[in-house]
Amino acid sequence: MPSAALARPRPRTDAASVDGVQAALAYARANGGRFVEELKALVRFPSVGSEPAHAAEVRRCAAWLAAHLDSLGLRARLVETSGHPLVRADWRGAPGRPTLLVYGHYDVQPADAADGWHSPPFEPTLRGDALYGRGASDDKGQLWAHVKAVESWLRTAGRLPVNLVFLFEGEEESGSGGMLGYLARRGPSLGADAAVISDMPMRDARTPAITLSMRGTLGMEIEVRGPSHDLHSGIFGGAVANPLHVLSDLVARLHGDDGRVAIPGFYDAVALLPPAERAALRRAGPDDAEMLREAGLSAGWGEPGWTEYERTTLRPSVDVHGIAGGYAGDGVKAVIPTRAAAKLSFRLAPGQDPARVERLVRRWVAATPVPGARVRVRTLSRARPVRVDARHPAVAAAAGAARAAFGRAPVFVRSGGTLPVAAVLSADLGLPVVLMGFALRDDGMHAPDEKMHLPIFHRAVETSIRMLAAMSRLSPSRTGRR
Amino acid sequence: MPSAALARPRPRTDAASVDGVQAALAYARANGGRFVEELKALVRFPSVGSEPAHAAEVRRCAAWLAAHLDSLGLRARLVETSGHPLVRADWRGAPGRPTLLVYGHYDVQPADAADGWHSPPFEPTLRGDALYGRGASDDKGQLWAHVKAVESWLRTAGRLPVNLVFLFEGEEESGSGGMLGYLARRGPSLGADAAVISDMPMRDARTPAITLSMRGTLGMEIEVRGPSHDLHSGIFGGAVANPLHVLSDLVARLHGDDGRVAIPGFYDAVALLPPAERAALRRAGPDDAEMLREAGLSAGWGEPGWTEYERTTLRPSVDVHGIAGGYAGDGVKAVIPTRAAAKLSFRLAPGQDPARVERLVRRWVAATPVPGARVRVRTLSRARPVRVDARHPAVAAAAGAARAAFGRAPVFVRSGGTLPVAAVLSADLGLPVVLMGFALRDDGMHAPDEKMHLPIFHRAVETSIRMLAAMSRLSPSRTGRR
Repeated sequence: MPSAALARPRPRTDAASVDGVQAALAYARANGGRFVEELKALVRFPSVGSEPAHAAEVRRCAAWLAAHLDSLGLRARLVETSGHPLVRADWRGAPGRPTLLVYGHYDVQPADAADGWHSPPFEPTLRGDALYGRGASDDKGQLWAHVKAVESWLRTAGRLPVNLVFLFEGEEESGSGGMLGYLARRGPSLGADAAVISDMPMRDARTPAITLSMRGTLGMEIEVRGPSHDLHSGIFGGAVANPLHVLSDLVARLHGDDGRVAIPGFYDAVALLPPAERAALRRAGPDDAEMLREAGLSAGWGEPGWTEYERTTLRPSVDVHGIAGGYAGDGVKAVIPTRAAAKLSFRLAPGQDPARVERLVRRWVAATPVPGARVRVRTLSRARPVRVDARHPAVAAAAGAARAAFGRAPVFVRSGGTLPVAAVLSADLGLPVVLMGFALRDDGMHAPDEKMHLPIFHRAVETSIRMLAAMSRLSPSRTGRR
Repeated sequence: MPSAALARPRPRTDAASVDGVQAALAYARANGGRFVEELKALVRFPSVGSEPAHAAEVRRCAAWLAAHLDSLGLRARLVETSGHPLVRADWRGAPGRPTLLVYGHYDVQPADAADGWHSPPFEPTLRGDALYGRGASDDKGQLWAHVKAVESWLRTAGRLPVNLVFLFEGEEESGSGGMLGYLARRGPSLGADAAVISDMPMRDARTPAITLSMRGTLGMEIEVRGPSHDLHSGIFGGAVANPLHVLSDLVARLHGDDGRVAIPGFYDAVALLPPAERAALRRAGPDDAEMLREAGLSAGWGEPGWTEYERTTLRPSVDVHGIAGGYAGDGVKAVIPTRAAAKLSFRLAPGQDPARVERLVRRWVAATPVPGARVRVRTLSRARPVRVDARHPAVAAAAGAARAAFGRAPVFVRSGGTLPVAAVLSADLGLPVVLMGFALRDDGMHAPDEKMHLPIFHRAVETSIRMLAAMSRLSPSRTGRR
């Protein structure tokens, strides 16, 4: 539905006044215990979007969310997609004010109690000052902070400082297909001036962080076909090209001896950061020792001249995730397999374009044919990198809110990960995308004993309350919409 | 039991006379139909040695064989091993004559009717002039030809032209563990002067073949360990050595650009064939077109200067059979795996020693360390190559018997495959090993619709009858035992 139809004009009041913020904060403090109880109800849904057996629970979770948002006074509904439904909820009562899009996802990673959970993954449990349960931080706890901030405004001022649309999806952990399709079709009609995504870690428990860039991806499969059927290596070994060898040779040649990706032209479009920004990033991000400790390694490896953190954020990379073909189980089967295939993905630095890199890879693969081997490249996924302008007023508004809530200015970091939704919001819809998360790096976002640190949750609610006010002071024209 | 205890001296008669051969051949012709019915009974046992579920059937098959051999007048029994039992049957009634060891195996490859069998694999079925069923040619049909040749002699002359020991195992398709252990412990006490193995194809349906060499093997696993746990390639891609990359690099460097194995010293001990023998081998073996047709390929690949057949028989090779680690299933899991491992095997040409090659490989792997990656090499199997002297009288005896039975002299070929038992008989026991098989290349030895061509089966019985006579004319001292 076009945003115009959703706007319900009301008498304009200064909802973003200091008094408005204080009232909303007081409400949040008074109701914080209930907020957590409601979050427990949300975590209780086993909304594992990637597992068909859970499809009904995913939908029940979406319906529960929509009903809750409706009860708060938003215009909420389920939007059907090819997969799990989106939850969309609008509040359009501030004509002339900017419109903020808040993205989140209510689907969660799979969870098996046998993997080492200390309490059942879908029975949210308080231990110490954390709430344990699958999805507690990724992303139910984070989206819930924004929902409760909106409630705090609506239950006190009776209105929000800005127009707002929540878009929550149920397929983030499995490709975001429905959300990407919806944004492609309906994105412009949302009338958003800025977007906020809270689905990433803070720097540490005391230091909020705003992410200024994310890497894109190019997922590919390289398949090598050889003999028409598996051959016995006794009978044919030495006389035919083994697809696993041809494939290994391609994988080996992805990198030069210097650790750089060796595909001609690969680095051409990579954006270089000004020295001052690079120095700031080095200070803000983890150092080599911290990175290696997390990886369980005594030595790093990669492109010379960059720190471990820079290698994973400013620089592109390529990794093979698995190689199929032949037999690698118990014992030995002496086969020369008819085919071998590698799944791999490039991580693309800001400046790189997945489609252009794809052409470079295809050309590179075709340049070294091997007799008796046919090589085919299949593209599995493409997502563009994301860049956020640190000087954008929307970023400044979020940073100010976080500083006030946490008593410490957020650091500006960069991520090596990929968020296709952020790329679409940024590149296709031209929105400034505020990437500000409230998880901790050790919250177990894709691991057992996932948790949400509750003191942080309450500060996230406060951050969101303050951010809504701060965003209201921007005129729509200042948000840089194009 | 030592062979001396098995010898039952009898009055010496010229059992190997022309009359003796003719009587045995007449008996075989008269009883050929029954021989095939008995072979059907043998094929009916689902003696799949590699599948624990079939263990009882494997033992029933062994017991049936031993009882049959006992009924023919041999001293037959089961020999227990760590795995399936051996069937050993001795006839020691010709003191002063040579002793022939005839090896075979009664275990069979797995068979699933769903793989494309036109009749159930363990319900032997006559179609055209072939008997279809799992094991019909590999190796039940081939060992049965020797058993029926022995019967033909015993039921006519009342004795054999030579002393004889049958050794049939139930683990050939799964490593020959029990047999190799037995030969190591008891081999010398068998008192054999020559061995015969029929477990390989003829050149074609009209042309028998004697194999003059087989390649050895060195089975290995190369494992690369990296980070302490699977890492997310978004968070760490570009900053750590990916075990799959390190492994692929090793696999790629196994070969030089010229198609030769690039491990220093690898070819040092490879025996070179005199030009005349090489020319004879080229004429006897398949040409490139035939090899490529069997592989379903339009182009070969490998060491320059050798034909496809030479590459697989005279020259060593190495093939990777599978690569484990990470995720290669449906979709993509963006992991940098904690480990990757390749199963591979070298095929060793006559002259090469598995232990020496193993040392070369370990040294080569250790020569190129990668920061953050630990490489471990594990040896899974070792078998020496086998060489047979074409001029040995035992080979001449077998060749003459085959020429008489098939009306065509056997060609001398070489095999790229491996038979650990043959290596032990040849290198450890010092026996001339006659490698003369009666299968056809298209008999489906490890495939659906395995069959035995019955006209060839009957000629194999005749070959064996004649060979027993021919071997008797060798004095034990002439058989080259060392």
